[in-house]
Formats: sequence, structure tokens, C-alpha cells
Amino acid sequence: MNLDKYRNLTRDTEFKYINVHPIQRGGVLTPEARKAILEFADGYSVCDFCFEGRVDLVENPPIKEFTGDIAEFLNMDEVRFTAGCRHAKWTVMATMLDKGDAIVVDSLAHYTSYLAAEANGLEVFEVPHSGYPEFRINPENYAKVFEEVKEETGSYPKMALLTHVDYRYGNLTDPVEVGKICEDYEVMFMLNTAYSSGLMEINGKKMRADFIVGSGHKSWAATAPIGFVATNYEYTDSLFSTSKIRGRWSGRGFTKKEVAFFGCSPVFGAPLVTLMASFPKVVERVKSWEKEVENARYFVNEMEKIEGLHQMGIKPTEHTLQNFEALPFHQVAKQHKRRGYFLYTELKRRGVIGVHPGLTKNFKINTFGLTRKQIDHVIWAFKDIAEKYNLEVED
Amino acid sequence: MNLDKYRNLTRDTEFKYINVHPIQRGGVLTPEARKAILEFADGYSVCDFCFEGRVDLVENPPIKEFTGDIAEFLNMDEVRFTAGCRHAKWTVMATMLDKGDAIVVDSLAHYTSYLAAEANGLEVFEVPHSGYPEFRINPENYAKVFEEVKEETGSYPKMALLTHVDYRYGNLTDPVEVGKICEDYEVMFMLNTAYSSGLMEINGKKMRADFIVGSGHKSWAATAPIGFVATNYEYTDSLFSTSKIRGRWSGRGFTKKEVAFFGCSPVFGAPLVTLMASFPKVVERVKSWEKEVENARYFVNEMEKIEGLHQMGIKPTEHTLQNFEALPFHQVAKQHKRRGYFLYTELKRRGVIGVHPGLTKNFKINTFGLTRKQIDHVIWAFKDIAEKYNLEVED
Repeated sequence: MNLDKYRNLTRDTEFKYINVHPIQRGGVLTPEARKAILEFADGYSVCDFCFEGRVDLVENPPIKEFTGDIAEFLNMDEVRFTAGCRHAKWTVMATMLDKGDAIVVDSLAHYTSYLAAEANGLEVFEVPHSGYPEFRINPENYAKVFEEVKEETGSYPKMALLTHVDYRYGNLTDPVEVGKICEDYEVMFMLNTAYSSGLMEINGKKMRADFIVGSGHKSWAATAPIGFVATNYEYTDSLFSTSKIRGRWSGRGFTKKEVAFFGCSPVFGAPLVTLMASFPKVVERVKSWEKEVENARYFVNEMEKIEGLHQMGIKPTEHTLQNFEALPFHQVAKQHKRRGYFLYTELKRRGVIGVHPGLTKNFKINTFGLTRKQIDHVIWAFKDIAEKYNLEVED
Repeated sequence: MNLDKYRNLTRDTEFKYINVHPIQRGGVLTPEARKAILEFADGYSVCDFCFEGRVDLVENPPIKEFTGDIAEFLNMDEVRFTAGCRHAKWTVMATMLDKGDAIVVDSLAHYTSYLAAEANGLEVFEVPHSGYPEFRINPENYAKVFEEVKEETGSYPKMALLTHVDYRYGNLTDPVEVGKICEDYEVMFMLNTAYSSGLMEINGKKMRADFIVGSGHKSWAATAPIGFVATNYEYTDSLFSTSKIRGRWSGRGFTKKEVAFFGCSPVFGAPLVTLMASFPKVVERVKSWEKEVENARYFVNEMEKIEGLHQMGIKPTEHTLQNFEALPFHQVAKQHKRRGYFLYTELKRRGVIGVHPGLTKNFKINTFGLTRKQIDHVIWAFKDIAEKYNLEVED
């Protein structure tokens, strides 16, 4: 076994390049979190003063208060931290639904939403999108699918999930509209905010969300893995249900441990601390979301000056994550000795990384948190590459 | 909302004190891991060069090779990383067993073993221990309980779990003996090495383990949360079973994603990198385990010179985690104005932390990784406190 490969693990990408990776922009740490991660780097670092045997009840560092502050920030009643948003979705489905139950999800949902349903043996019904090039989810279709579920299964579904902002096109769907429909049909409403909370303001009560799940490493300037689930008092007993098992021989019981969170949620290390340390800045940054969207629209506008390149999804964009279709780049790739990898390589030479290596026909870019100067550099890089390969670029 | 409490999160405990916290000694980072954590601090930091959509297949940093190296180190065939050992246990039970199935566990098992069974709707049968003061698990009793299960349910259990080293007394139970019994009965054998792998050598094949689970933050000098599950080829198809779901409307499928790992296991950040960075030192340190046990026995011997204080569990100890019974300290606590907290406070004043605040009658101490000089300091602290409260201390 050659151990040398583990001896000097470095990631020069983040420091030497502008990173436009679609899943990484919202997870870049604040300087405060970088400082805190070293303080709490060791193993179970937040357990020094654990008296209750559950990480969400630890008061030093102030995790207990933090769950309250996150709940307040989202206008929900209670919060627990999870091993990523995927674990959060699984906890909601595992505790609120039974095997064989129907769940309605938007057809742009993240794969982990489908997998959480699969792991819990649920029947997934999809809300269609409008197809190419907008891929829009129409909230009214939730009602239509609820009726279809009733027709097929005899009753309305127990739960619906909306992906607030989807990971394929960065489309934003209005949760208030979906929430109202769920309320009318008495269907529990889970909102996946992996690409929204931590970037933009979220008002759970106004959105009529029963469950809000989110991702610290995706959108709250935190180290992976850290996610959360927020709910309202109506559901806390079920979602946070505690262990009822009793040792047959020993009589042992664990009545304070919450089952869907593996007893004490495995967030007892540095990732949770980075989430806390970044929180004051996150509270500030959601107020600047409009500026971020303005930057994104400027970026799209400039990128579309390249021949044949256009943003897919809802226009003008309402998010910093874009999916571009670029057929002329695809044509170049067909002739290029590096095939699809030419774009990645050409961008890297120009100081830009994060476009998926090998992709040219479609690729995703996230401009969240970049300065106008950095965005201009990315635009320049794409235009310069286009010109090198004799594509038209508008002035 | 007062955000000031999040502005300067510090943990002075690790740096100013000798920490004997039972769950923390094996998770103290190596200097190499401390360096790596800053490199990979941002969100999804290991996803820069993800081509396959699964973290265990990433080649830069060398995660794919790392899964192979961990498997080799444990003498098993394949490995996946998980959100802690608790998630690993859940994945094994979720994929290999059905609701209502029986599982046999030792009665010293960690609470997360019981909860993983509870979350999967399993029926837990316990292997008794020998009671006070040794609390020994006799491997032969596994056969006895298998027979009891057959008597009660009509068939032998499908799976048995052994806690290699338990968290209450630090008792070590021989997995080879249990493994042989499981082999004879054709019962799948899961070995929980949360307190052993990463500290001592583990030979999975020799132990006849079908599944080995472990904890990076508990015993491999890594940041929480990071765990793993190792298995042999016989079970890889089931344990790592991939998604079969198909979008009814969209036709979407995710055939590369492993269901019990939430598709792509949520270990795509700094914790996994710390595990990798510490690995060369971990490979070395398991060779010095005997020295650690020798230090622990020296520690116990000195501690037992204090009147009425004695180590519980198997003697001489075979692990660095000890559970002490200290009735005279408990008597002091009854009279003390700080009650049980006096011991914590007195120790902290003497530069020692990690004994659970409030406990005096029973408390746990882990000496793993401490130098002889540090161990002598801890001994001095206890003896000095004993003398202050007029307890006898042997010379």
C-alpha cells in the first residue's frame, strides 16, 4: 500500500482560480468559519460540555440557541441538524410516511429526493415541467397531480415536495402557490431549499411549509456535511420522535434519543461549527440577493453574445445558477483532439474552473458571491475561447 | 436575534488542558490532518473533479484508491464512507434485513446499534453480560441466544452484531470466537469497531466478519462526521445496491446512485480529507497498541491506589478506555456545595478535562495517545484531589 498519496493533500483550485462550480459557490467559507474550523477540527469537538447526550441540546458552543435562531431566521418553530439535506429529506419521509404511501414531487427534484422516497418505499408521482427550453414547474399542476393520485390510489397523497430552486436549471418556483394548494388539499408540504435558504430570504410560515430542508455546504458557507430540517409544532412529536426500544434482557432504553437522527445526529464536529461561525454573515447576505440576481442577469446577457450560446430555464434568470446550451462549442469539441475536455482546459488556462470537465453542449455555471470584476473575467474567458475557435461574438 | 455569540467561536479546552474525554482521544487530529482541513474547508471541497456523481469514485483527491486501501488495511474486500458509524450500521441493517427480522446484539452495544435496529423495525435479542463488576460478554452465549431466537421465532436470526470494544467499560470481546459461531449458524456477522479499528490492528477475514463498521472521528484521528462500512464480495451487490426508481412522468433514473448511502454518501467535505491525511499515521499507530494498553494498565494501577477507587470491566484492562467506580468521591460530592460538579472543577483547576461534569460515583477516562508524562499528571491530579478531601492514597 503506497501511502505517499495521502501525505500532502492540497486543493489549489480554490485559491488560484475563479471557481464557478454550480454546487460550490454557496459553500465557500467565510473567514470567520475558516478560523472556527481549526478551533473545532478534532473529532467530536463540540461534545466537551454535552450533558444531555444530544448535540442539538449542547449549550457550549451555543448549538441549542442556534437551532432556535435558525428556526427564527426561517420563520419556523423547530430545527434539527442533519448529515446534509439528503439525510433531512429522509428523516421527514421516514417519520411522517409509511411504506407504500404516495408522495408528489416536482419533476426537477434533486436525485436525493427520489432516493429518499425509494429508501422509504414510497410511490413517487411527478409534477411535470414545461419542457425545453424553460422547464418551468407550474404550481397549479400540483392540484392536478393530487387528483391523479386520488384517481389511481383512492386517496390524496399525504405529502408533496417542492424543490424551491432546482439544480438543473436554477429555476425558482413560487412556494406560496404550492403551499396554498397543499393547504387546500390537506397535504403535508416539504420545501427543499438546498439552493435558496442561506442565499435568499425564506419565510416558512408565509410559504405554508410544514417542513423546510436545506444544505449548509450548498448555501450557508459551511463545510460538508451539514444540513437541517425545520418544522412547526404540529409535527415536532412525529418528526423528532424518540426511541421506544427496550433491551429484552438488559432493560436498556434511550428515551431521549431521536430515532430518525440516529439518536444524536452525526453533526458533532467542525461542519456544524462552520455553519454557526458563518451565520452572522449569512443573515446579512440574504439581504443582497437581488444584487446577486442582477449580476447573474448581466452575466447571462454577456454570455449570450457568443454565437449559439443561450441560457436555458426561466428567463430572465431568477437565480445565480445557470444552465447554458452551447451547440457551437459542441461542434468544436467534435473536431478537437481533446474532444469535450477542450472547454475545461481552455477555461483553466484562463483562470476559470468549475465547468464540468468533458461537457460542452450543456454546462452549468454559478456566479454567486463573485464580484463584478470576477464575473467580467469569466465572460472574457468564454468570449476569448469562442473567438479562438472562430465563433461569432457580438460587441 | 443576538448574533454576537457566533462571532468568535473558540474551544480552548483542547489546547490548554489534558483532555481525557472517553470519546475524544482517538479523534484528535494529526498535524497532517490539521493542514489538510484548511485546504478542503469549503463546502463540497472534494467535488472539483467528480466525473461519476459518487464521492467514492473521485480520483482527485484519491478517494477511490482510499476506499481500496482502507479495505486492504482491514482485510476486507470493499469499503464505503458514511456519516459516522451510526449511519454505517443503519445501511447494513436497511439493506440486508427486512422489517420484523431478528438481530442479535451484545448487551453492551452502543445505543446507535439499538436505534439502527429500531429505525429498521427489527427485533433485537441481547447477548447477556456477566454483570457487575466485569460486565463480560461470553462469545459462547451468541450460540445460546441464536437457539433462543429459533425457539421464539421459528428460525435462526439473519444477523448478529458484536461491539468489539464497548463504550461503557472498554471491554474487548474476541471477534474470532463470535465469528466462528456465526459461521457455524450461517448468521451474518457485523463487527462494530468504533473503539478499535484505527487504534489496533483489525483482520476482518480472520475475524470472519461480513460487515465491519467504524468511526473516523472516534478512532482514526478525523473530524466528525466520518464513518465507514467494509464488506466482502458476497454482500457488495446487496449492501451497495443502486437505485431502481424511475420517474413516472419524466423517466428519470439514477442507476449509479447507492440507495442506503443517500445516492452519494454525504462525506464530500473536510472530514473525509482529514481521515485520508491522518491515514499514514494511523497505519503506524496501530502497531503501537500494546504500548497504549501498557500505559492504560499503569494508569489504572496508580488510580487504584486511591481509597475505594477501582476500575470496572475486564481486568487487567485491554483498552485505553476505563470506567472507574469511586464511591468515596461520591461521598465527598454529597457534602460538597458544588455536589457532583466538584470533581470536574477540581480536575480542571489542575489542568485536566474530559471527565463528565457532575459525575463522581462512576466516570470514564481514556488515555489513548497521552504521553507517560501526561498520564502522570492526570494521576497526580486525582491523587491530589483525593488527599485534599482526606481520602487515603497508597504510596
